[in-house]
Amino acid sequence: MVTMQKFLAIDAGGTSTRAVLLDETGRCLGYGTSGGGNPVSRGFEPALDALAAASEKALEWGDGPVEKVVVAMAGASLELPTHLFQERFVTLGLIGEVVIESDLLAAFYSGSYQDDGSALIAGTGAVGARISASRLAAVADGTGWLLGDEGSGFWLGRQVARAVAAALDGRGRPTALTELVLADLGITLDSTQRTQGRLRAQQQLIFKVYESSAIELSRFAPLVFAVDNDAVATDIIERAADALARTLLAVAPGAAEPLVFGGSVLTKGATVAAAVAARLATPATPILVHDGVVGAAVLVLKRHGIEVDAAVFTRIQDSLVALRG
Amino acid sequence: MVTMQKFLAIDAGGTSTRAVLLDETGRCLGYGTSGGGNPVSRGFEPALDALAAASEKALEWGDGPVEKVVVAMAGASLELPTHLFQERFVTLGLIGEVVIESDLLAAFYSGSYQDDGSALIAGTGAVGARISASRLAAVADGTGWLLGDEGSGFWLGRQVARAVAAALDGRGRPTALTELVLADLGITLDSTQRTQGRLRAQQQLIFKVYESSAIELSRFAPLVFAVDNDAVATDIIERAADALARTLLAVAPGAAEPLVFGGSVLTKGATVAAAVAARLATPATPILVHDGVVGAAVLVLKRHGIEVDAAVFTRIQDSLVALRG
Repeated sequence: MVTMQKFLAIDAGGTSTRAVLLDETGRCLGYGTSGGGNPVSRGFEPALDALAAASEKALEWGDGPVEKVVVAMAGASLELPTHLFQERFVTLGLIGEVVIESDLLAAFYSGSYQDDGSALIAGTGAVGARISASRLAAVADGTGWLLGDEGSGFWLGRQVARAVAAALDGRGRPTALTELVLADLGITLDSTQRTQGRLRAQQQLIFKVYESSAIELSRFAPLVFAVDNDAVATDIIERAADALARTLLAVAPGAAEPLVFGGSVLTKGATVAAAVAARLATPATPILVHDGVVGAAVLVLKRHGIEVDAAVFTRIQDSLVALRG
Repeated sequence: MVTMQKFLAIDAGGTSTRAVLLDETGRCLGYGTSGGGNPVSRGFEPALDALAAASEKALEWGDGPVEKVVVAMAGASLELPTHLFQERFVTLGLIGEVVIESDLLAAFYSGSYQDDGSALIAGTGAVGARISASRLAAVADGTGWLLGDEGSGFWLGRQVARAVAAALDGRGRPTALTELVLADLGITLDSTQRTQGRLRAQQQLIFKVYESSAIELSRFAPLVFAVDNDAVATDIIERAADALARTLLAVAPGAAEPLVFGGSVLTKGATVAAAVAARLATPATPILVHDGVVGAAVLVLKRHGIEVDAAVFTRIQDSLVALRG
């Protein structure tokens, strides 16, 4: 029996981490998950613990040394000292090196094994990327909730809350979103109740929003898809699609290359994804991906010099689906 | 010699507090200033200390009891327990009551002694109000930096930063604002320097913005007026004027009634004020006010049942100018 080389691929997200053990043919042997593994949002040690926890679960399924580890993480983590990762993974049987890769590459390679193409991700944040020769050639937006992330979940949620605040004092049009947002916050709307010239419901909305952290506004994002024939909601969705198309076009995606869409705004429900695709000069059929674990697996093989073709890519996908059950 | 009744009027702002001692004819006798006097942003005791400090300076200029105190404050403070103010002012010679009034009323009455009219304030925040029979009849926006305050200093500063972030990755048009913002942050723009697909200058902009508090974005607001013939800057100013006009129109200002503009966005430089005025259906000449201390003085007389006519109003204004030197 020939002993195959084994690899560990980790998709470390802000709220959850996925690790997969695979062999050199792309066959996934073990899979594990854990909590948030982003050192920037979680702190270095807790993030490293999360990576190790997911990895240990994945490693229960196989034995023998691990040739290489790829950890896919959000951009700000890419300049972290890799020797600290290295030390931790040596205790898990690593004999080679730890390579940190961008979560954007992992998202792209979760949808394609080709080395040139583009990705647009709209989850809590929003970012576009063009991949060229297996590296990030251009990145647009992903500038965070204060500076950009336009069309993201936070952006959508904030626009919903703003539209309701504006509807309540007559700056904006009436919208069915008002009832949904106020119900979510436990606020009763009584248009006869004013304090100091302001509707009590608006005053309560202001209090509730500012007693929470800003990022909590993301919770209102799904509401924009929950109302029918509402001009205000439609306008928010259209502006999100405009912004996301602008982000994608800014990285100059190749018309003949694969286009990968990820993140809840683009993958849960087809509204925004279709609206973005319709805004591209060349008709495109985006490949939807739900996380970056397949791409992390593709990356660990590629970075070890193993060619990933259609057969290997399909093997990664299918064997991972079987493991995840 | 007839002894006149004396009154204390306080304009308590977020960063500074002004107090004026005046007599029943509107003649201002003493004036004092201190630090931020807003209980919501400063805490109750420090705010009360600031009110007392400004008041003590104003009271150095006169003797005898104070009949009444009006404290003008931002809306959120209006439901505070007035007996705590009462106790503090008794030690300063107060024989009557302390009345808390909205800073919107004080701003309006700083520009007019009439009891019906409208005010639009755009400083760090932005809010519109219609005053009817000397009370707030309608208020629009003033919903804070996350929910609204559209056209405010924070809003302008954030739009400037967003425009620069977008210009740096090609989502937005090039703009002269880029050079000004990067220079302000000590960032050098080198279009050949990329990290992980992103311009280093943009990465540095992101780091600098998120290591400060969100409200710090207000500092970029003045830059929008510092560039000439810049389409991006012009667009931001136009959108600010649109938003502020919407806020004012939402309170349905009476065409024949006084219209007061306050706050740095509307009073420092004429660009935005003129653009807002041009958007109203009926041509209006706004009265510009720089703070709310005249209005607080008007309010303390009115709330004591003293009529404030043109002569009294002019006396308050002129004697205060003389005191402020």
